[in-house]
Amino acid sequence: MRTRLRRLPERGSHDWDVISAILDEALVCHVGFPGDGGAPVVIPTAHVRVGSMLYLHGAPASRMLRTVGSGVDVCVVATVLDGLVLARSLFHHSFNYRSVVAFGRAVEVVDLEEKRRALMGFAEHVLRGRSAEARQPSAGELKATRVLALRLDEASAKVRTGPPLDDAEDVALPIWAGVVPVGLGIGTVVAETPSLPLPASVRGAECDVRFGGRVFDAASSVENAG
Amino acid sequence: MRTRLRRLPERGSHDWDVISAILDEALVCHVGFPGDGGAPVVIPTAHVRVGSMLYLHGAPASRMLRTVGSGVDVCVVATVLDGLVLARSLFHHSFNYRSVVAFGRAVEVVDLEEKRRALMGFAEHVLRGRSAEARQPSAGELKATRVLALRLDEASAKVRTGPPLDDAEDVALPIWAGVVPVGLGIGTVVAETPSLPLPASVRGAECDVRFGGRVFDAASSVENAG
Repeated sequence: MRTRLRRLPERGSHDWDVISAILDEALVCHVGFPGDGGAPVVIPTAHVRVGSMLYLHGAPASRMLRTVGSGVDVCVVATVLDGLVLARSLFHHSFNYRSVVAFGRAVEVVDLEEKRRALMGFAEHVLRGRSAEARQPSAGELKATRVLALRLDEASAKVRTGPPLDDAEDVALPIWAGVVPVGLGIGTVVAETPSLPLPASVRGAECDVRFGGRVFDAASSVENAG
Repeated sequence: MRTRLRRLPERGSHDWDVISAILDEALVCHVGFPGDGGAPVVIPTAHVRVGSMLYLHGAPASRMLRTVGSGVDVCVVATVLDGLVLARSLFHHSFNYRSVVAFGRAVEVVDLEEKRRALMGFAEHVLRGRSAEARQPSAGELKATRVLALRLDEASAKVRTGPPLDDAEDVALPIWAGVVPVGLGIGTVVAETPSLPLPASVRGAECDVRFGGRVFDAASSVENAG
């Protein structure tokens, strides 16, 4: 059981609701697989969870998909960063985060209907409602996409929340401590089709839990970032 | 040379400025290493780049650090997500992103002065100026921290920017296409020491390129997220 929680077990969870929520919130995951000679390779990629299955996809020529689909042991991680934890001591600085680590062996999805549903799922995972707005995949596109499925039966979550945990003897030090929350937000949309109204999927992004209502103006951000 | 760019080479780069900027912007990385029996394990963790070295750290009992420090081949990935790329066709949906994949073997840092500098570096990586504000590491804390160093001599970057790339025959379809920029922002600080003024490191976060001037109000975000 590789998902035995080894360090800081109070931060670990096998709770399915926690695991599935993290997988659904994270926009990308990181997939570890054995590369040439067996040394590990890690690649960031899109994913979608449908029930207890995690799907990955891409071009049939992708080395990652060819290897991961060949039945080797893989490890998939999804991470959401929630805050910078600033303690009084450097030693206790940390992050608030939620992550899932899943182990298993993926299988290639060959059934065209399951493939089509998975492709819709990737778009839905990015923005709810998007899969119905876009042009549906053609038979040729389904063939030109490799879809892999990993059953999530060996997954665990780790979560850190809350304030910094300083040593008792440091609490009275005149050093500022606290948490700086961080999270993904959305910026001003760049339309390729300015004559068309903003679709419901994009308008809904403001209410998407992944972006927590955090809307920023990309143009002014660039100025501020100076 | 494992960092040969295999797919979509036009998105790849061995440019050091690109690589170092991505490593510096990403707040966490994902480390792949061989677990028990050799199957890959991937763990999210903090990192800091100092020159051409990438440092990792944690408790000496951490399985990840024990294994990664034992001289095995590892793969470290840092990913920054920049946008949701919504094409007219489902098939061409994508992300704008920047990622670095680095291969190598890490060594444990035993020199106390290099360890101390690395620990300062982790805090500086989180927020510029923080390492000087916080209580410095004691000799005991330095001993209670394992620091690993990976030389970045086999690293490459992948970057996707710009609009969706639809097939020519889809461009006239009445389907909205465009990019929804996404990025990390910072929320309302939660102070543990409300009687102390906000330190320069936290005040400076607004101007940190990682947050691009994106400031959101955590309280209202939660309401909006409903």
